[in-house]
Amino acid sequence: MRLDVVTIFPEYLEPLNVSLVGKARARGQLGVHVHDLRDWTHDRHNTVDDTPYGGGPGMVMKTDPWGEALDEVLADGYEAGARGPVVVVPTPSGRPFTQELAVELSERPWLIFTPARYEGIDRRVMDEYATRMPVYEVSIGDYVLAGGEAAVLVVTEAVARLLPGVLGNAESHRDDSFAPGEMANLLEGPVYTKPPQWRGRGIPEVLLSGHHGKIARWRRDEALRRTAANRPDLIERCEASAYDRKDRELLAALGWEPTADGRFWRRPRAVEE
Amino acid sequence: MRLDVVTIFPEYLEPLNVSLVGKARARGQLGVHVHDLRDWTHDRHNTVDDTPYGGGPGMVMKTDPWGEALDEVLADGYEAGARGPVVVVPTPSGRPFTQELAVELSERPWLIFTPARYEGIDRRVMDEYATRMPVYEVSIGDYVLAGGEAAVLVVTEAVARLLPGVLGNAESHRDDSFAPGEMANLLEGPVYTKPPQWRGRGIPEVLLSGHHGKIARWRRDEALRRTAANRPDLIERCEASAYDRKDRELLAALGWEPTADGRFWRRPRAVEE
Repeated sequence: MRLDVVTIFPEYLEPLNVSLVGKARARGQLGVHVHDLRDWTHDRHNTVDDTPYGGGPGMVMKTDPWGEALDEVLADGYEAGARGPVVVVPTPSGRPFTQELAVELSERPWLIFTPARYEGIDRRVMDEYATRMPVYEVSIGDYVLAGGEAAVLVVTEAVARLLPGVLGNAESHRDDSFAPGEMANLLEGPVYTKPPQWRGRGIPEVLLSGHHGKIARWRRDEALRRTAANRPDLIERCEASAYDRKDRELLAALGWEPTADGRFWRRPRAVEE
Repeated sequence: MRLDVVTIFPEYLEPLNVSLVGKARARGQLGVHVHDLRDWTHDRHNTVDDTPYGGGPGMVMKTDPWGEALDEVLADGYEAGARGPVVVVPTPSGRPFTQELAVELSERPWLIFTPARYEGIDRRVMDEYATRMPVYEVSIGDYVLAGGEAAVLVVTEAVARLLPGVLGNAESHRDDSFAPGEMANLLEGPVYTKPPQWRGRGIPEVLLSGHHGKIARWRRDEALRRTAANRPDLIERCEASAYDRKDRELLAALGWEPTADGRFWRRPRAVEE
């Protein structure tokens, strides 16, 4: 996979040399190219922004540096043999970046990231490139950053760990929160390792029982409890048929009830609780 | 504000020297201390992880290095005059990190981040510190990262830009996506700057009209369109009373209908569309 990033803060992308992404680069599984947008400015101040049409606070990133940068990045990539580029624009106005979208992007051979600063990039830039290749405008969450660079690190890491051979142990995907399968839509519960006692705190006895069935049931109960507490939206989203009898008993004890349309709904707590 | 980060990849936190957070540090508005967790290991291999109790794939981070690290970080901070620590644990099992939570954290004087790797930290560590101070377990989104470091960069940036005097222009918060007020729950629409023509593409005429009312209306329409397309959940979440007559007309044209309980619901598209 080839990654290009065009930014006015190339040094923000230093973490792409570290850890999982850094190792994938070192092994040749990823080619990463970070570019400074200001290399495509032609004035003394290397201007990349200007005031918005229609007025208002903030600045807008100009068409010309982005157009010239993307043209050259595309030409260089094609010359190096890369094919099938997609542009990934981190923006709070985008569609949510999810694990599903990470999987989709991990199947593309070439991602070009355009992290913006200020109020964003002049709309015409993406209107133009969207006529030639897919443009994904993605939001990593409901909060406001100072720029798209942190989002590039997030998307890159979520995508890179899905590439074949990048994670040491293929099994490590299996129990991921949000992974498809038995634990889909459940958050992972607590984990423990040696020693068995630490500052007066032990570990749940069942984990020492050696009884695989009981351990699996305990883990699923803990995952359900945590999901109900931190992400009730995930419980509401699921068909009731995704839950077995023990799941339903636990959900009932936590105040959830089956609805007429085959899902679960949480009883509002009584005032005295 | 004081920030401490304990991690096995201190170099991943280099972006804390850059841009907004870097400038806030240089101005003394933020004190940032990055620590290497392995400094609190005592074996030849600097071991921080071990196999999970109960079996299964992956490794769990051990209690001892974390406990020693947090004790020393807390002691150092108190000695330097810091007060009111909270621990922030990035984990996919946490509650969602939102702009509201960014505001809450920005009002705390001291944040201690504990980004984990592998399957996470032995549960007893946070059970222990939660008896002494608030522990926030937060998830930045529904995707899986290789570790919590990228999430620390995200949370730090979202929090730091809210500190008094960190953003140049106080007004720049006003039109943020997810900001309270008129644009609450609406994504920002497209933005444009000079030149008026670029590669055969012009700008919407209304932006040149100088008519503030028409420009505000156009921006709100575009924000509604983008929100309906990328984030129907935000439209569904809002009381219908949040929309004026023109908003309702536009939503109706986009296929949304008011519901009996005072919200909006989108008609499923007809098959032939």
